[in-house]
Amino acid sequence: MVERTEERHAEKMKKKQAAHDKIVAAKTIEKGLLVVHTGKGKGKTTAALGMVVRAIGHGKKVGVVQFVKGAMATGEKAVFDAFPGHVEFKPMGEGFTWDTQDRARDIAVAREAWEEVKRMIRDPAYDMVLADELNIVLRYDYLPLDEVLEVLGGKPEMTHVIVTGRNAPEALMEAADLVTEMTLIKHPFRSGVKAQAGIEF
Amino acid sequence: MVERTEERHAEKMKKKQAAHDKIVAAKTIEKGLLVVHTGKGKGKTTAALGMVVRAIGHGKKVGVVQFVKGAMATGEKAVFDAFPGHVEFKPMGEGFTWDTQDRARDIAVAREAWEEVKRMIRDPAYDMVLADELNIVLRYDYLPLDEVLEVLGGKPEMTHVIVTGRNAPEALMEAADLVTEMTLIKHPFRSGVKAQAGIEF
Repeated sequence: MVERTEERHAEKMKKKQAAHDKIVAAKTIEKGLLVVHTGKGKGKTTAALGMVVRAIGHGKKVGVVQFVKGAMATGEKAVFDAFPGHVEFKPMGEGFTWDTQDRARDIAVAREAWEEVKRMIRDPAYDMVLADELNIVLRYDYLPLDEVLEVLGGKPEMTHVIVTGRNAPEALMEAADLVTEMTLIKHPFRSGVKAQAGIEF
Repeated sequence: MVERTEERHAEKMKKKQAAHDKIVAAKTIEKGLLVVHTGKGKGKTTAALGMVVRAIGHGKKVGVVQFVKGAMATGEKAVFDAFPGHVEFKPMGEGFTWDTQDRARDIAVAREAWEEVKRMIRDPAYDMVLADELNIVLRYDYLPLDEVLEVLGGKPEMTHVIVTGRNAPEALMEAADLVTEMTLIKHPFRSGVKAQAGIEF
């Protein structure tokens, strides 16, 4: 790395600051965002959970619907419980699809979960709605994508909606304001380490 | 997408389940992980926050040291406060480096924050330690990488350590058990939307 003199550093940082201030000043729109977390890496649900926690901390009301059971578990439940009235948590999925092996039942469960999401999105009392692992359900065609896009497109202006899960449909990413792809670089599972409290659940 | 008959679906899912169970059964090691969240995308700090929250929910003790002020803010603070005794939160950074323009002071602040991280990592009472935005400090050579790697390498076996920030040094990623890169696909800032509570802070 190039050596920096104190003076050159101050000058460089001054320029960075001016550029940053200019960018921030140009941002004046406040609106509810459609956020998508996708990719094969970890952290999609975890980052959504972080956003939920921040929103709670700001006194907001958040609805959380879990399409696949197990993605969120006892850890976050205990935290949600500490803020009664701020989080409505609906763990709807009955386990991963390979646990049920019953497509008709999976579709019925997905529909039930989706109806909860719809209700929350349409109710302006919710500041944020998290549809956790919705992408997986869309991937298996358990819900019509058109219907999902229509509901998301018609959300109240100030409501933030977060959708997680690998393989987000192209059309959903098109419709989103913020899309982040979590890419796995290195995973301890590969070296025989099991899922652990605080890390995986 | 290929149409799935109920029977074919059940068969396919049964195979997936067997493969999944086999993988899980082979994972028997439990150990503290060195986790790195890097990349230019959003969600690095947020996903780390999600992990902290999960750990708290499981009754664990977590230390959080923030190398750059502003990365974590009032939202998470309120949540940490709801679990007294479980989170020690140290917001050490004095603003982004371009706010200070004083390299010597930045180095002193980085050192002070790092000493807190070291103390927490070496104390087995902490189940998890988050060094938020440490990568930025390493990027500017405010701390010697060798010293950081030595401390991380010598952590107690069961302690999880999470390091966040873009531009993670190659050697840190080499040393890590789990590395996730957050890639920005689409960002609302580009269309004039400002930072908002629950989303950005």
